[in-house]
Amino acid sequence: MIQRPRGTRDFGPEEMEKRRHLENIMRREAALFGFREVSTPIFEHTELFTLKSGPNVVEEIYAFQDKGGREISLRPELTAPVMRFFVNELTNYPRPLKMFYFGQCFRYERPQSGRFREFYQFGAELIGNPGPESDAEVIALAASIMRRVGLKEYNIRIGHIGVLRGMLAQAGIDSTKAPPILQKLDKKEYEEARARMTEAGMSPEDIEKVIDVTRTSGPIEVLDKISGDARDHLEAVFRILSEYGFTNVEVDLGVVRGLDYYTGMVFEMDAPVLGAEKQICGGGSYSLTELFGGEKTFSTGFGIGFDRTLLALEREGYSAPQHHVDVYVIPVNEKTKGEAFRIAAKLRQAGRITEVDLMGRSISKNFKYAAAINARQAVIVGEKELAQGSVAVRDMSTGEQKLVPIEEILSSIAC
Amino acid sequence: MIQRPRGTRDFGPEEMEKRRHLENIMRREAALFGFREVSTPIFEHTELFTLKSGPNVVEEIYAFQDKGGREISLRPELTAPVMRFFVNELTNYPRPLKMFYFGQCFRYERPQSGRFREFYQFGAELIGNPGPESDAEVIALAASIMRRVGLKEYNIRIGHIGVLRGMLAQAGIDSTKAPPILQKLDKKEYEEARARMTEAGMSPEDIEKVIDVTRTSGPIEVLDKISGDARDHLEAVFRILSEYGFTNVEVDLGVVRGLDYYTGMVFEMDAPVLGAEKQICGGGSYSLTELFGGEKTFSTGFGIGFDRTLLALEREGYSAPQHHVDVYVIPVNEKTKGEAFRIAAKLRQAGRITEVDLMGRSISKNFKYAAAINARQAVIVGEKELAQGSVAVRDMSTGEQKLVPIEEILSSIAC
Repeated sequence: MIQRPRGTRDFGPEEMEKRRHLENIMRREAALFGFREVSTPIFEHTELFTLKSGPNVVEEIYAFQDKGGREISLRPELTAPVMRFFVNELTNYPRPLKMFYFGQCFRYERPQSGRFREFYQFGAELIGNPGPESDAEVIALAASIMRRVGLKEYNIRIGHIGVLRGMLAQAGIDSTKAPPILQKLDKKEYEEARARMTEAGMSPEDIEKVIDVTRTSGPIEVLDKISGDARDHLEAVFRILSEYGFTNVEVDLGVVRGLDYYTGMVFEMDAPVLGAEKQICGGGSYSLTELFGGEKTFSTGFGIGFDRTLLALEREGYSAPQHHVDVYVIPVNEKTKGEAFRIAAKLRQAGRITEVDLMGRSISKNFKYAAAINARQAVIVGEKELAQGSVAVRDMSTGEQKLVPIEEILSSIAC
Repeated sequence: MIQRPRGTRDFGPEEMEKRRHLENIMRREAALFGFREVSTPIFEHTELFTLKSGPNVVEEIYAFQDKGGREISLRPELTAPVMRFFVNELTNYPRPLKMFYFGQCFRYERPQSGRFREFYQFGAELIGNPGPESDAEVIALAASIMRRVGLKEYNIRIGHIGVLRGMLAQAGIDSTKAPPILQKLDKKEYEEARARMTEAGMSPEDIEKVIDVTRTSGPIEVLDKISGDARDHLEAVFRILSEYGFTNVEVDLGVVRGLDYYTGMVFEMDAPVLGAEKQICGGGSYSLTELFGGEKTFSTGFGIGFDRTLLALEREGYSAPQHHVDVYVIPVNEKTKGEAFRIAAKLRQAGRITEVDLMGRSISKNFKYAAAINARQAVIVGEKELAQGSVAVRDMSTGEQKLVPIEEILSSIAC
């Protein structure tokens, strides 16, 4: 047997119904917010991802040379491709431009529980202005999606990259030295962060102040000890979110993000039911366009881990609608097959999920198959009944059976 | 600017709406036939595709080594992955097992008009028995999809691999020498086919008989000059298709398919509006499972070229539903913003596609934006009106405006 590649998955019918159901709810919610879908290729020039995330990213992604000698990578995320697309072709759209996307992403790393080499991301990007309205709109969409898919427990933690950047700048750390420090703080690797700050010449007091700030979390009032634009901005974001109806929101200045292109608000969402690996969404405001050769633009976006969100829903006891077949059509013998196919075609055209015996089975075996595929009704096409222009319609759950004239068959089969 | 890789495409909002609309119709039609969706990884072990199509296929696909030294390929088609999945995990499902799929495939070849390195395929596989019922069911699904998406003109051409195989066997050509001859006949490269048949020791008369048969096309009666199982089988397939309501069907023994795993019926569908590159669907009955380490099973399937089908529809003047926004909410100033967000949240929760001013624009600029996003109505949240618990609702096409109490707003905005 040939196995599928390590870290990838096949999805069978039940799994796919569940996944499409969830995807469609997300898609619909994004549409209700006025976001519109875009799509980009599965692979990109590797340069796109190294520009965004630095040269080391190549170690973690599927990078290869194509036959023309081009450096190509399977996309590890979708923000860079979408912003490349925006810079190349979408700059003339009216602002705010609101886009969403859903698709596979790829990373080359040791597969582990709940983490796959091929995984699915649902995301959105809003290109508009740097105001709190844009940030709140994007967070509200992410939260509305979680509410609409029925996730019972989730938290929204919001930080602001400007607070720590401001403190580091005040302590004399220039913008080239800040990113590695911020990366360590983001991962909560405090010893390494301390070492780097010491190396950069910061005083022990300043260092502890910085560490202390990254541990600041709680209701909006925890910002009272901080002043400046970042606080005003977050207060406005919190106010709009509460107007949108979301109050499960906390400040968490430990949400940092080490990368340069983040410009202000950053946020994460957790599903506590997932335990240690609880993050289901991450996002923030950023500016990537100038990296890709465009004009500077302000954007806010997020990526939802589709697989983890589904896992969280299942841990909470979520069950997707069950597959069923509206009607299974059974010819009793060779002579009534033609009519069986005609009836099946009619039912399908009228929107009924219809199967018809293709295997030439006996009636009792056909009933077994009808049960196996969860058929709600069976139409039995018998010779004698057919001579009178009728067929038998059987309710598969009760076993009740009645004669129905063929021309009235549509009204006796619900969809 | 960083360009997307050669031969790939980005799809903007309008294009995606059109594509999703079409995809959803196809998906829905497959479901009405009782087919259920499955999904497999974007890449597979290269061996899967060389087993199916021979070692030369590597030249035409995106084959590369991953960091673990594994030979990996972006999938060039979806039948092999789906049958691999079937052999590994789905053999216990009741038969017939009916599956469909939709996704990207990849080929490495010079991009040309209408052919891309990343392209989309919609396909179905039915695993059951070798009877004409299974073959007809699969052809009927492909045809029903074309009817349901609204393609005005398309033809179905059906052949049978057994006719030529039988003639070659009778002329003394064993099954190892037949495939290269069949491949030439499939491509209508008659001179090369003649050369190979001569080389294999066939008489000029036998050779011309074979060539003649591949030119046999027309209504089912053209089969009268041929006898045997293949004819009986095709006659039954044609009869069932007419019971399903499809009569735009012809025999075409020039539909050959060179590959060994095809077992009987083969078919193609054309959209004449596309001119020379008119094929939009191809399929047939085959057995691949034993190649992948499973037991021999009989299957019938097809692949629809999604991009070409969309192109055919557009050439025929197809237009997808236009994007619109149900309502655009405009706060007249800073003081009414909070209520604007509350109203937007309420409308979205009730299923209205809603946008709200995020840019702090003036009323007249907001009206322009509302027109640009094709908003059907605008809700204007003014200070004085708000004091009386009302907002103004404006019909964007007529310009008519009326005062509506906030609690009645849902009933005044259609979705």
